[in-house]
Amino acid sequence: MSSKVLNRQDTRLLLIQAGTNVMLEKGYTNSGIQEVLSKVGVPKGSFYHYFDSKEDFAIAIIEEFDNDFTSTQLPLLRDESISPKQRLRMHCENKIECMRSSQCRKGCLLGNLSQEMADQSEVLRHALSTVMGKWTDMFAACIEAGQQNGEIPKFSNPQKIAEFLISGWEGAVMRAKTIKSLEPLETFMELMFDHILNPDSKPTSTPPKKI
Amino acid sequence: MSSKVLNRQDTRLLLIQAGTNVMLEKGYTNSGIQEVLSKVGVPKGSFYHYFDSKEDFAIAIIEEFDNDFTSTQLPLLRDESISPKQRLRMHCENKIECMRSSQCRKGCLLGNLSQEMADQSEVLRHALSTVMGKWTDMFAACIEAGQQNGEIPKFSNPQKIAEFLISGWEGAVMRAKTIKSLEPLETFMELMFDHILNPDSKPTSTPPKKI
Repeated sequence: MSSKVLNRQDTRLLLIQAGTNVMLEKGYTNSGIQEVLSKVGVPKGSFYHYFDSKEDFAIAIIEEFDNDFTSTQLPLLRDESISPKQRLRMHCENKIECMRSSQCRKGCLLGNLSQEMADQSEVLRHALSTVMGKWTDMFAACIEAGQQNGEIPKFSNPQKIAEFLISGWEGAVMRAKTIKSLEPLETFMELMFDHILNPDSKPTSTPPKKI
Repeated sequence: MSSKVLNRQDTRLLLIQAGTNVMLEKGYTNSGIQEVLSKVGVPKGSFYHYFDSKEDFAIAIIEEFDNDFTSTQLPLLRDESISPKQRLRMHCENKIECMRSSQCRKGCLLGNLSQEMADQSEVLRHALSTVMGKWTDMFAACIEAGQQNGEIPKFSNPQKIAEFLISGWEGAVMRAKTIKSLEPLETFMELMFDHILNPDSKPTSTPPKKI
């Protein structure tokens, strides 16, 4: 830590950043506030100077995670110098690199907290739904642009394809965490991008028999 | 509870059944052993008469969940009086009815525990991987039979399609839990069964432009 005196906002952000790492690894219930405070060097007991509750802390973590996603991924998802499907593919490939560098640990904070807390906290469930809804819209915009330029087939509307893509992605991240292998993510990429979102994909090398 | 004296095996099974319900709703960490013991009417302190640890209890819950899945779902997945794709569809529709009757709470025990515990307990991670691997094989067998009779396109091998189907399903269950709506599951069913696994699906009503 820098020796310069931190103001309240700096300290709050450091707590959120440390809390994100702990919650990504351990989930909500398993994360101890004391562990987060120790990492930042904030004295025990001063947590409530920054946050009303652990739930309030988790909401701040989700908001910061969304801000970070929006500032790092939205420019890519809106980059018109790259084709819309390629933007989606690059976004997923970036996330696979994160999974590779963490040895298939942690996964997606939103997926983890959704799975653990959707039935436990209405406040967290609402925040998670809102952020995931925003992300779905970002993917849907890319899919719509891809359908307009013909590189993504129009078998359904962009919003449904985006929902399907996010579900498949989140499930593949969960499976990769569980078997500690990137294989489910690689299978997702191959089937989703090379076949399902590919208007030129041939479903079978030998035509299926009609039954 | 019946007034007849329960033997050790009966009591163990009752604890597992009560534990399954509590863990489905609350996850591993949030589930209290005392709550489970109270539900079954087993005296406090006698838990270790039945299980070595909470982790050992969770392993027994996962094994019983797998036994239940195998005894209820495997006969359907192997029922040759129904077409292979229809068996897969009926299996998923059965699970959607469970989600409907629970008002989109709980979800899939294996998915929940995988997400929460894969980085926390190597013993649980191993048990979850093993059971999910068995289920993937059951789905892959159905997909292979569907490819052989021509009702499922051969855009990839059965094992990869089964992995993709399970990832997509688990992600859609998680999304349904989070937004408290069956919509992600309905979207999954429509896109997976009516389009992706349909050799007659037309990807677009108007042919996409080539770029």
